[in-house]
Amino acid sequence: MRVVPRWYSVTPIYLDYNATTPVDPTVADTIVPLLREHYGNPSSSHALGKVCREAVDKARQQVASLVGASPDEIFFTAGGTESNNLVIQGTFLKEGNRTAGMVTSCFEHPAVRNPALFHRENGGEVSFVKTDSSGVIDLDELKQVLNDRTRLVSVMHANNEIGTLQPIRELSEICSLRGIPLHTDAAQSVGKVPVRVDDLGVDFLTIAGHKLYAPKGVGALYIRRGQTLLPSIQGANHENGVRPGTENVPYIAGLGAAAQLVMEQGKEKEKQLQNLRDRLERHLAEQIGNGISFNGCLAERLPNTSSVNFPGVEATQLLAEIPGLCVSTGAACHSDSIRLSDTLKAIGIDEQTGAGTVRISCGRFTTEEEVDRAGNLLVEAWGACRQVK
Amino acid sequence: MRVVPRWYSVTPIYLDYNATTPVDPTVADTIVPLLREHYGNPSSSHALGKVCREAVDKARQQVASLVGASPDEIFFTAGGTESNNLVIQGTFLKEGNRTAGMVTSCFEHPAVRNPALFHRENGGEVSFVKTDSSGVIDLDELKQVLNDRTRLVSVMHANNEIGTLQPIRELSEICSLRGIPLHTDAAQSVGKVPVRVDDLGVDFLTIAGHKLYAPKGVGALYIRRGQTLLPSIQGANHENGVRPGTENVPYIAGLGAAAQLVMEQGKEKEKQLQNLRDRLERHLAEQIGNGISFNGCLAERLPNTSSVNFPGVEATQLLAEIPGLCVSTGAACHSDSIRLSDTLKAIGIDEQTGAGTVRISCGRFTTEEEVDRAGNLLVEAWGACRQVK
Repeated sequence: MRVVPRWYSVTPIYLDYNATTPVDPTVADTIVPLLREHYGNPSSSHALGKVCREAVDKARQQVASLVGASPDEIFFTAGGTESNNLVIQGTFLKEGNRTAGMVTSCFEHPAVRNPALFHRENGGEVSFVKTDSSGVIDLDELKQVLNDRTRLVSVMHANNEIGTLQPIRELSEICSLRGIPLHTDAAQSVGKVPVRVDDLGVDFLTIAGHKLYAPKGVGALYIRRGQTLLPSIQGANHENGVRPGTENVPYIAGLGAAAQLVMEQGKEKEKQLQNLRDRLERHLAEQIGNGISFNGCLAERLPNTSSVNFPGVEATQLLAEIPGLCVSTGAACHSDSIRLSDTLKAIGIDEQTGAGTVRISCGRFTTEEEVDRAGNLLVEAWGACRQVK
Repeated sequence: MRVVPRWYSVTPIYLDYNATTPVDPTVADTIVPLLREHYGNPSSSHALGKVCREAVDKARQQVASLVGASPDEIFFTAGGTESNNLVIQGTFLKEGNRTAGMVTSCFEHPAVRNPALFHRENGGEVSFVKTDSSGVIDLDELKQVLNDRTRLVSVMHANNEIGTLQPIRELSEICSLRGIPLHTDAAQSVGKVPVRVDDLGVDFLTIAGHKLYAPKGVGALYIRRGQTLLPSIQGANHENGVRPGTENVPYIAGLGAAAQLVMEQGKEKEKQLQNLRDRLERHLAEQIGNGISFNGCLAERLPNTSSVNFPGVEATQLLAEIPGLCVSTGAACHSDSIRLSDTLKAIGIDEQTGAGTVRISCGRFTTEEEVDRAGNLLVEAWGACRQVK
């Protein structure tokens, strides 16, 4: 081991955009005046309230426009977790639905998996459908578990750890034949690939601000017109009664600005992200060679995400060698836990391979130089870890 | 009626601090760097995550310190509404409690009243205890409705519309004799009067950021050590499993800074607020004379709040005359509704009197000059409305 820690000589490199994104400066510029000056309550009828109401209305249009919805189909929440809970609780709290069926995948984020498990504890019928080894849900199994008691199907649009995109459009065709509402957690896909509610054919869609260059603590839920949910928290009549609580005006406006930025940026950025990710994967494959593998790379996946299995090392040791590199070992949301993640289990990764898995996720501010530097640091650290052994 | 609207010639006067407070500049100064620079996910183990974890830890200490709790008894939420729901749902979602009893007052904020009604719809036993005409809950009735099935008592610390303080300490003695957990919604009192969990003897206490010079969209819940609640939303393990969802680091740090400001400010500010409020009430009483009255003024009440019944006019007409004055007719949370509020009903105000009720609430940035100007504008507008009739 070295006496002088390596990170003193390098600027930190952030490649953990799937855990959380920086707030875009344009988004921050939208938020700050609403924090510092326009402090009214949008429900107040006086002048200070009206400015805030207008800011919320504008944001609702921007978010709606990003996903091809109408403004009255967009409901603001405190984040992706809450949006997911609102769909699941809001479906199964309804009279007659208390023990109805739900179908989901076996590698959802805990914000879907845990409300599903809670529904099961309360007597609900819940099926967790398996995925294949490339990280795509098994539609044949899904068709088999649907039944007359199924009231909700919830499958993520893109997996947070390996980035694989799920066949939501096909799923929608299956669900609509049976009249079952379909929800997708699009926290990871919105802003990285095109997401349009009608193309996907979904009834509910979750958006998380902090995966989209808006802050942590704000999100939205798309609810297709005609669908209804019971509010999962009760209170005053905000968000048309679906989500009570005085509106977080600055962050809501920030989410609107973040949506606007994605629309302005378009397809080019997606290609650029993919070039960076592919460049890094090629670099690692060439330098490490035998035994390295990339989870989900055989399926269609997010352009920014790489889930790398480094052979013969433990990811925590590897990363301890490079404190200036910000990446994840599992999903960042549960970094204290060392058990194999549901995602890695789902695609059949064994424990030894999974111990060496690193998630690298690029984003809007990632440069080629950073990606090259990260590649070199990872290769060097991998070599050092192997030598110690 | 005048041709030139009066408000062109006056600077807006904000006396609606009970609806929402401006964000204190010191609070904004704490938030902005966390928005613009330190964007890590507190759950990430890398350097960027650690800075954010530390900011959250510091805020937890500050908020705990303000209410005399331990940091591990403070849980951050997206606001007062969510904190209230977490207590009520978290109590009655528990196995064995699904149809248990809850006792509350008849003039709670909708964020307590509506989850209570929802519990009743689901088969729970819920009692809404009356208040006297001064705006204080009837403890004798409360004692009578408590029974062996009661699992929660929830009574607000200070009423949002008329500011009356409730006898939480006495209530605590009643509840602890029977081993019933006590919750108080202290959204309106924290920052205006001393609030200490041990002095009040409560088991759960709700804090709302935007009544405390922090932004809308953040709050906290105090949970006394030994008490447990089921999380009302399910997800990853944030906030010790009680409240999942990636932490809103900037706002949480802002709430901490807001708590710190209240502690530094101390008792003087309370006296100063009371002087302003009393000055305004004297002014109105002298100028309007016969028929004016002040709701809740016979009870102990918040130092900043005045609920004024203007005789012989409708509050909406009165305020339409003075668009430069920001105050409320009912609670701002439901300004679209013209029905008499639960609070005014509870204290026995008739519809005609209640139609003339205006809530005026001062705050940290209110000046004597503003209060005098507001008093003059109100008296002048009252005169104009009376002339029209």
